[in-house]
Amino acid sequence: MSKPTPLSGFPELLPAQRFAELAMIETLARTFELHGFVNLETRAVEPLDQLLSKGETSKEVYVLKRLQDEGDGDAGMGLHFDLTVPFARYVLENAGKLEFPFRRYQIQKVWRGERPQQGRFREFTQADIDVVGQGELPFHHDVEVARVMAEALARLPIPRATLQVNNRKVLEGFYLALGLADPEAVMRVVDKLDKVPAEKLVEMLHEEAGVGAEDAAKVLALAEISAPDRSFIDHVRALGADHPLLDEGLDELGSVIDGCAEVEGVDVVVDLRIARGLDYYTGTVFETRLTGYERLGSICSGGRYDRLASDGRTTYPGVGISLGLSRLVVPLVADGFGADRSVPSAVLVALVAEDSRGASDAIANALRANDVPCEVAATAQKFGKQIRYAERRGIPYVLFPGTDGAAHQVKDIRSGDQVDVDPATWTPPSADLTPTVSHSTEESNK
Amino acid sequence: MSKPTPLSGFPELLPAQRFAELAMIETLARTFELHGFVNLETRAVEPLDQLLSKGETSKEVYVLKRLQDEGDGDAGMGLHFDLTVPFARYVLENAGKLEFPFRRYQIQKVWRGERPQQGRFREFTQADIDVVGQGELPFHHDVEVARVMAEALARLPIPRATLQVNNRKVLEGFYLALGLADPEAVMRVVDKLDKVPAEKLVEMLHEEAGVGAEDAAKVLALAEISAPDRSFIDHVRALGADHPLLDEGLDELGSVIDGCAEVEGVDVVVDLRIARGLDYYTGTVFETRLTGYERLGSICSGGRYDRLASDGRTTYPGVGISLGLSRLVVPLVADGFGADRSVPSAVLVALVAEDSRGASDAIANALRANDVPCEVAATAQKFGKQIRYAERRGIPYVLFPGTDGAAHQVKDIRSGDQVDVDPATWTPPSADLTPTVSHSTEESNK
Repeated sequence: MSKPTPLSGFPELLPAQRFAELAMIETLARTFELHGFVNLETRAVEPLDQLLSKGETSKEVYVLKRLQDEGDGDAGMGLHFDLTVPFARYVLENAGKLEFPFRRYQIQKVWRGERPQQGRFREFTQADIDVVGQGELPFHHDVEVARVMAEALARLPIPRATLQVNNRKVLEGFYLALGLADPEAVMRVVDKLDKVPAEKLVEMLHEEAGVGAEDAAKVLALAEISAPDRSFIDHVRALGADHPLLDEGLDELGSVIDGCAEVEGVDVVVDLRIARGLDYYTGTVFETRLTGYERLGSICSGGRYDRLASDGRTTYPGVGISLGLSRLVVPLVADGFGADRSVPSAVLVALVAEDSRGASDAIANALRANDVPCEVAATAQKFGKQIRYAERRGIPYVLFPGTDGAAHQVKDIRSGDQVDVDPATWTPPSADLTPTVSHSTEESNK
Repeated sequence: MSKPTPLSGFPELLPAQRFAELAMIETLARTFELHGFVNLETRAVEPLDQLLSKGETSKEVYVLKRLQDEGDGDAGMGLHFDLTVPFARYVLENAGKLEFPFRRYQIQKVWRGERPQQGRFREFTQADIDVVGQGELPFHHDVEVARVMAEALARLPIPRATLQVNNRKVLEGFYLALGLADPEAVMRVVDKLDKVPAEKLVEMLHEEAGVGAEDAAKVLALAEISAPDRSFIDHVRALGADHPLLDEGLDELGSVIDGCAEVEGVDVVVDLRIARGLDYYTGTVFETRLTGYERLGSICSGGRYDRLASDGRTTYPGVGISLGLSRLVVPLVADGFGADRSVPSAVLVALVAEDSRGASDAIANALRANDVPCEVAATAQKFGKQIRYAERRGIPYVLFPGTDGAAHQVKDIRSGDQVDVDPATWTPPSADLTPTVSHSTEESNK
């Protein structure tokens, strides 16, 4: 085999980078579990008709075909392109065995059958949380998923994030108050606010949604409103519209922003330009921007969908939010995000001679008994070379076995300090037990 | 959507079962990291020519095709069927950025494009460890991977495992000592020892490898040897064969069994019938049986391969072992293996009335600040119903918020004990913080 080259769109990480990604996954999992969300893993494939049932033929799907298919009845299957479709199917399939409201998190790969030339991700990891009810799902779960994901974003070793919240009832109620005929069409236009200049938007509102100039100005004025607290309600009221759906939306949105007020390390704001116009959301909607990485767009999006799944008799409403983990990790890694070691080992046990490997192994096992990750030097090189072996891997300590009754000694190769130790009782400071994850950008949420 | 049905060969788990699988993954990861193995994740796809390069066209591969392919240069790609092919490719691709010897573990899904009618797994999770060297890899790493996987098997909440070790140099050296012309062919026959009666094997040895009756008896006598320690060497010597390769193999095999002698909770034995005849191993070979689950065959196999990868100039020898996690978990789950909760929550915070949800949320946040997973009741039902809500999910504690200045109280719903608590300081006993994983079979390695 000659040297292989990477496949465009299928990112892979080096060990120290992967360690940083794993640390993020652990932080996410721990946060979700503290809030009672259980982990699920669904299969990678779904029947093609399910994958395409939303009419979203624009979804690029990878279809599976057996290499040795002889037309023996293998129904069409494809790789899932998100975690929502498989979750909805899982809920329907196992409804009788689940307890509702059902909180789950899922951290898995998804695939998009994009053209290789596009440079887009074709395989990436998402981290989703959802709460799903049977028949009904009280609104307070909208507040819950917002708070849980806000806490998770705050704990991640990433630049500061801004979780933007809106509620489609606010938009729809406002448009209905204005007497606009097709609120959905208006939302689809407003959703382009970040990409299209205001004048062009007025034009589009007229052409695509039949909105006159005066109403268009109000639609845009509404979209301009943002606030870190309940004050947005006064700004909306100042625009003079009135509708029961608007009232309901303002009330819900106020509850979400109140519910996130105490979460530190992240900004949670009401932003009335967030419409998610092409999605099936029915109330609360979320997007997320990362400071210094605005070019990535939203890294974490979701909302309330009153029909996550239905078997014809029972409807399962849900509310959820999905973090694009690879979308976040890959650009961060390009900017130096990673761990300070390429191995988990906190200690390298040096080797005096090949025939004393047993003695070094015994020391390593004593350290492991106290939960200290370590490894024994591969060969009995000169100690200077063994120290460089540790340095190249980022291992902070080298333990030199004592010979002829002399004490064992451990050297902190960063400071050069060397002291006598008993491997049965000595452990490195807890900060050195696991690699440290850091990113090299200026802004941080810490 | 009507109620979906499972896809044969794509196992999925219910929450309490998935929790048990995750606990196993965490135990594996922790054990591997204690020994300095770093986690890697490789992409799910490889170029088809790489997947098929071993000439193993019997491998059933899933080929990917873009739904909207217009013949625009998407090269043939397939889903990986093991973790060894992608790891070998990763090592070649990143050799300049890795430090050797390189220890990695990988816990990922693999896919086999089997006919749906076969009832075989088409998607399953494997957990692999490998050590790979650049140019050379000292033998002591064979001992290392055996010991690491033995420790992992001992720590898993599964019936007692038996790790069977052999060395192909012992077999080949013995056959060469007998003057047999085609040792490979002999090994392929011996590999069938578990499936074929001895008389039939003698026949096959004659037909497929040209072995006479007297030599066949010796070949079978060798294969019958097994021992938990070095005593196997005497038994082999008693058969009278002599060859330098046999000596080398006996020496290596003795080192592996010595190196695993101190691992408790698992049986490590030399078993000279283990040949792995169809694989590319060049020395040490491993298989693993699970007490009470012998029908599964080997759940954990591997060995030394002197040419894991090569770019034409440099060869990368490796030694590794692969645990078939799904192969293990799915049958155990069918026999009752699982966690005692369907949610991570250790505590349900009861709800006095919907308008006091804020008070219950504050209590839950106080518990979470002390790392106690918990959830707030979904609705303000009567307390009896809220207790049953906890019971159905296996949540051991219900915390009742005190009203009008009364103390908060927590009830252990298993014992019925109820005491006053301060949510800022109270935590459940550590054994109750996470679900307990258990299996219902009699034998255990604990």
